[in-house]
Amino acid sequence: MGIEALFFDLSGVIYSGLRPVPGVVERVNALRRRGYCLRFVTNTASQSRDYVLNMLTGMGVALTPDELFTAPAVAAQWVRSHGYRPFLLVSPNVVGEFDGIARDDPDCVVLGDAGDALSYANLNRAFGLLLAGAPLVGIGYNRYYHDGEDMKLDAGTFVHALEWASGREAVIMGKPGADFFAAVVRSTGFAPQQCLMVGDDVFGDVEGALRAGLQACLVRTGKYREGDEGRIAGRFAVLDSAADVAPERVVAQ
Amino acid sequence: MGIEALFFDLSGVIYSGLRPVPGVVERVNALRRRGYCLRFVTNTASQSRDYVLNMLTGMGVALTPDELFTAPAVAAQWVRSHGYRPFLLVSPNVVGEFDGIARDDPDCVVLGDAGDALSYANLNRAFGLLLAGAPLVGIGYNRYYHDGEDMKLDAGTFVHALEWASGREAVIMGKPGADFFAAVVRSTGFAPQQCLMVGDDVFGDVEGALRAGLQACLVRTGKYREGDEGRIAGRFAVLDSAADVAPERVVAQ
Repeated sequence: MGIEALFFDLSGVIYSGLRPVPGVVERVNALRRRGYCLRFVTNTASQSRDYVLNMLTGMGVALTPDELFTAPAVAAQWVRSHGYRPFLLVSPNVVGEFDGIARDDPDCVVLGDAGDALSYANLNRAFGLLLAGAPLVGIGYNRYYHDGEDMKLDAGTFVHALEWASGREAVIMGKPGADFFAAVVRSTGFAPQQCLMVGDDVFGDVEGALRAGLQACLVRTGKYREGDEGRIAGRFAVLDSAADVAPERVVAQ
Repeated sequence: MGIEALFFDLSGVIYSGLRPVPGVVERVNALRRRGYCLRFVTNTASQSRDYVLNMLTGMGVALTPDELFTAPAVAAQWVRSHGYRPFLLVSPNVVGEFDGIARDDPDCVVLGDAGDALSYANLNRAFGLLLAGAPLVGIGYNRYYHDGEDMKLDAGTFVHALEWASGREAVIMGKPGADFFAAVVRSTGFAPQQCLMVGDDVFGDVEGALRAGLQACLVRTGKYREGDEGRIAGRFAVLDSAADVAPERVVAQ
């Protein structure tokens, strides 16, 4: 079995800042013409799906809405399919993903990049729900991020804190969560080992994909730092850029 | 070598709620008359040292101020002796312990039971200081506590979250921190194995004391629950109440 589907991380892989990585858009469109199934997967929890879709289209990436998987949208789909009523600690920009889901008398906690809404009072409310048996859905599991000026605590730190306090394990929607990768794989109709994740984050993209049974490719753009390929175990390809992706050379293991 | 010093936890050991545990005050005063060195040690981070001292005295416990070790006061002493300028995330009730310590341009983080001051903005400020090399002093390391109505997240959850995000290890002032026990032991002039910690918390009091090289005694009052003595490894005594403490029967190991 060879590779049938390619999953591309966005920031640092397709574009860096707001500019496309040279040659990547052309390569992605060429892979589509060659018949590969394409998916675009991002943990971004501060921008709506429509915003990301418009940005990709504006850069010349040919894609349909159902090929784009943002962590908040996948979290909303998980909540919807399980019939939960979420207590949302997310950015106002992504609340819209949860439209149509009842939120009164919540029995589930969804925690993302919520900024100042991550108050002691709100975290205690979430903690009380967890103790009463509500599941915790984490949008991403990153410890921190750089906001352009400073390092800021990311959602993962608060998800981890609630896990530690409650003794419960979160469902991580977003890379490196296995449930998240599984949702994207399911949409392709292929087996995990027929899917290749292309990313610049050796933990979130590459290690997460390998753990979920996918193939993986680390690219030396975006957040890649010298030596990253040595930080994890497992077999994966390393390329200078997603413009060099050649799935016919990857053999499913 | 036998036991020369006894350390008593307060809440759940000397008193429960606001009422003395029957027979304990009399026993403590009798041990003092027999020449034992006594220390009273508490993690309480929401009441001042003076408040606790008055409460004990009001119950009939004979003690001098230097025999009482509260976690915030020991944290303040640590900060003072190291010459740090702390960013304080603590209860207004214990800020007074830090009187006389400069707090401008902070190079140290002290995190305790700070309630609503545990905001996203303040936690980010603490995180930035840790990344710049500031040490993190945690007043206690408990995950949660019961405030009489609900379970609330305790300081330990936020200390742990900052450790996880920053990759740094906190200095825990308060049980079960080894630095905390060491400070109390030092004040006695005896060796750790000559000191007996008496507490109702099998982790914070008993396991913490054993790890710091002290002897320990678990009492079946306060937060003790059936089977607690089986939850940790190590040799320690188990008694119905601190009213039964008989240090002459404990042989230093």
